Amino acid sequence: MTTINTNFLKFPGIYLFQEVARQVAAFKKTGPDKRVISLGIGDVTQPLAKAVIEALHKATDEMGKAETFRGYGPEQGYPFLREAIAKHDYQDRGINVDASEIFVSDGAKCDVGNFQELFSCDSIVAVTDPVYPVYVDSNVMAGRAGDFADGRWNRIVYLPCTKENGFMPELPKEHADIVYLCFPNNPTGATITRKALEAWVAWAKREGSLILYDAAYEAFIEEEDVPHSIYEIEGARDVAVEFRSFSKTAGFTGLRCGFVVVPSTLTVSDGNGGRVALKPEWSRRVATKYNGCPYIVQRAAEAVYSDEGQKEIWAAIAVYKKNARLMTEKLESYGLKVYGGKNAPYLWVRAPEGYDSWGFFHLLLEKACIICTPGVGFGAAGEGYVRMTAFGSPADTAEALERIGALFK
Amino acid sequence: MTTINTNFLKFPGIYLFQEVARQVAAFKKTGPDKRVISLGIGDVTQPLAKAVIEALHKATDEMGKAETFRGYGPEQGYPFLREAIAKHDYQDRGINVDASEIFVSDGAKCDVGNFQELFSCDSIVAVTDPVYPVYVDSNVMAGRAGDFADGRWNRIVYLPCTKENGFMPELPKEHADIVYLCFPNNPTGATITRKALEAWVAWAKREGSLILYDAAYEAFIEEEDVPHSIYEIEGARDVAVEFRSFSKTAGFTGLRCGFVVVPSTLTVSDGNGGRVALKPEWSRRVATKYNGCPYIVQRAAEAVYSDEGQKEIWAAIAVYKKNARLMTEKLESYGLKVYGGKNAPYLWVRAPEGYDSWGFFHLLLEKACIICTPGVGFGAAGEGYVRMTAFGSPADTAEALERIGALFK
Repeated sequence: MTTINTNFLKFPGIYLFQEVARQVAAFKKTGPDKRVISLGIGDVTQPLAKAVIEALHKATDEMGKAETFRGYGPEQGYPFLREAIAKHDYQDRGINVDASEIFVSDGAKCDVGNFQELFSCDSIVAVTDPVYPVYVDSNVMAGRAGDFADGRWNRIVYLPCTKENGFMPELPKEHADIVYLCFPNNPTGATITRKALEAWVAWAKREGSLILYDAAYEAFIEEEDVPHSIYEIEGARDVAVEFRSFSKTAGFTGLRCGFVVVPSTLTVSDGNGGRVALKPEWSRRVATKYNGCPYIVQRAAEAVYSDEGQKEIWAAIAVYKKNARLMTEKLESYGLKVYGGKNAPYLWVRAPEGYDSWGFFHLLLEKACIICTPGVGFGAAGEGYVRMTAFGSPADTAEALERIGALFK
Repeated sequence: MTTINTNFLKFPGIYLFQEVARQVAAFKKTGPDKRVISLGIGDVTQPLAKAVIEALHKATDEMGKAETFRGYGPEQGYPFLREAIAKHDYQDRGINVDASEIFVSDGAKCDVGNFQELFSCDSIVAVTDPVYPVYVDSNVMAGRAGDFADGRWNRIVYLPCTKENGFMPELPKEHADIVYLCFPNNPTGATITRKALEAWVAWAKREGSLILYDAAYEAFIEEEDVPHSIYEIEGARDVAVEFRSFSKTAGFTGLRCGFVVVPSTLTVSDGNGGRVALKPEWSRRVATKYNGCPYIVQRAAEAVYSDEGQKEIWAAIAVYKKNARLMTEKLESYGLKVYGGKNAPYLWVRAPEGYDSWGFFHLLLEKACIICTPGVGFGAAGEGYVRMTAFGSPADTAEALERIGALFK
């Protein structure tokens, strides 16, 4: 008899952002008099850069002519894009990453969701709390998380990030085989210093563990001491995989392109006393279950690195950074306690006295028609917070702040 | 210590099409005097339809303006595309499939590779032999295939398709929880009659099993008695999932769009005496590990169903069908035994006396600069055959046939 993977039945609720969408849809049915503004899901609003649009048109025209039509591309991504990434994001910054170590994909969510497939099902996984749900949920599906009770999975090692520790995870006290780190952080907006990241790399070496490093928000880093890539840290090539995305850097949330770096020097245990290189195994996974990012999208991503493209994407990022500064300033002026929002597009906002995460979410939705994301949805340690994003349009952001302000007068 | 999923270490070689590409690359380095022509990987060569190109341009322009920009779309796909699919591919043909049961993706390879995640790791999986490698390899990675010895995995149930049974799998003699069926078939080009497919649906009901039905090549069906969808068979909604693709129908191999149909009535065992609906579980998987097919690609797929789009895609398919007829005629005139090629874009060609699959592959490559796919790469029962595709340009196809003819003079 066909039987479900029973790990799927262990989830206590639906996927966080689906649950938020469900509640918002129910609220909209009540016919609010104000337009609903979202500071919820981290979705960009600035249009694609002109250079990107031009590249899409040009590549589309190629697809319409037999002489220049392209069918299946290399599963790993076209060399033109992998080389542009290696040069601009790594080599020009003095970081040793080769084009052959880059795997282009349709987004970092897919990559971070899929990468765990490479590891033994009894691996011990560590995550920060709060955490981007995909890290946990993909491991739940694979059976690594155990069972859910009191807001936590009993085989996951949680690293609480609280205001007491500056939302900076401490090194695990117990052993973990794999740790997911995301900096600048989703959802707290916290960043990591070079020194702190060095301690993580040293820990991974000592423990024989692997760091899955999500750097999807690196474009928002402004400060000097904050590493853009884990490969800025000596030795990281032996213990870390890095995930990147064009979603937040260049507004590709609806176009879908990201990449993962798997250094050729990275090995893990083969379960039998030896070592096995990870890169050929990821290559096998990609070749078996994926067929490459669309050619036209890869040309669009390549255009992000052109002089024109660079100018335009930094202008869009500047809009979001300005939003973040304004949000911090205004929310603080209403007496709210705000974290993050610097070097990061997310603000981690403490719910006012008497409200928990969902309570504050409902207050904002019902009284101000504002969507945010309840912090507890990211993990037990997120209780009492909500996440707000700076990805709205300037006009919407300003109006949202005004509406929130009215609640606190 | 981080440990590999040891199932990855069980593969006897690299992915079939990677291995073919490796050998072709090595041959090209020897500097052949003729241009190499591929009848190998099933990749289209006709450019995208004008209606599709126009839709891409239009949607691209929308992405360049703030008012019409689209970020994250629904993970399951935009309603406009799901409704077009439900209407044109199903309802207009009298088949009961609703838009809410369709999940748009970036291609059928990804879907058939990922879908097995929903099932228990000890499920017994049945496949035809020969078979599209993704069905097997994705189950190897999940640990359902057991170990490899003498060309076969010891936990997989193989259903041999040979010239003796007309390349039509018999119902499994032993129990299987999940069976993959692909019709029109890759690689043999065989089709299934309504009656034979009814027998499979009845078998699945009797056994409490699930059919994963790959209909990626349905657009090539010409004959009346050959079902385009498994849902043409009564009761199939209770026992089957169907995979479809725009790759071979509309030339989307480089654009990436497909879909899977998961009927709302389909349930499997919950492992605890009850039943669980499959659709919400696939929805959970999609929401957790996927972020939707690019908006512009979904608009392109929608345009396939426009009057103009339909006219153009059928013209392209007619080109491939003409190739297939010519290939069959010529190859038979050289004394080769040819199967498939009718209702299907693949020809399953018997290697001449004295040659096995790889031997004939090397003969064609080295003496005629023609790439085909060795049949044994699709399974032990494929030994002695090669697969040739009709997806080449008419000029290349004609030249390839001439070169092959010269070998048999």
